[in-house]
Amino acid sequence: MTRRALFYASAEMSDPREIGSDFLPRFDAAGLVTAVVTDREGGGVLMVAHMNAEAIAATRASGEATFFSRSRGRLWKKGETSGNVLRVVEMRVDCDQDALWIVADPAGPACHTGAPSCFYRRLTDSGLERVDG
Amino acid sequence: MTRRALFYASAEMSDPREIGSDFLPRFDAAGLVTAVVTDREGGGVLMVAHMNAEAIAATRASGEATFFSRSRGRLWKKGETSGNVLRVVEMRVDCDQDALWIVADPAGPACHTGAPSCFYRRLTDSGLERVDG
Repeated sequence: MTRRALFYASAEMSDPREIGSDFLPRFDAAGLVTAVVTDREGGGVLMVAHMNAEAIAATRASGEATFFSRSRGRLWKKGETSGNVLRVVEMRVDCDQDALWIVADPAGPACHTGAPSCFYRRLTDSGLERVDG
Repeated sequence: MTRRALFYASAEMSDPREIGSDFLPRFDAAGLVTAVVTDREGGGVLMVAHMNAEAIAATRASGEATFFSRSRGRLWKKGETSGNVLRVVEMRVDCDQDALWIVADPAGPACHTGAPSCFYRRLTDSGLERVDG
């Protein structure tokens, strides 16, 4: 079988959530899904955060990424104070619909530290090493 | 201030976890961090899963991504049955060290459905739409 044929054969045996065209986010016990944001231009991962149903609705309505802040216990529009909003280019959902992938155009640094991405350090054998970009 | 100067000024006021070179993963109550895997070649997000300390250690030791399966309650090496392992090119950690970004070379489709990426559907106004790649 080709890769595509295999894909359909396998998917037919799976949860309708995996094959269907209905957006049915699988929220965890706290009402959240994981949201990964990548940069349209550079392609890298900018940040990882969480969304509840309200955050997803606000993001889709405004075109700017809104999350649910677990530490603050409230909706949090990225850039609401800094101005560094994330303009949504595309949203995707994964197979079991418990994670979202948002491709975005960032208006400025995505990280609260001022780094372009929150992932500004790589793991090495001796610890973390700062990277650019 | 330049963006870089701002970065350091801001980071100095932050948690040492954010500025330091020590790898100190911030595990959640279940002992997990979020792990995002992207494709070195295409740059897209392949999958999102979770790692505990043991999964991180196994991944670093073997160079192939190993996760903690919440549904199965055990370590789960991606590709252990399918052969579709994810060869780790680079691992990064985010500012507060509760998420990992793994750049990988996939040996085959990353999704259990046979799709190259778990994120094979985009959100539209009328539901989900399948995409290629």
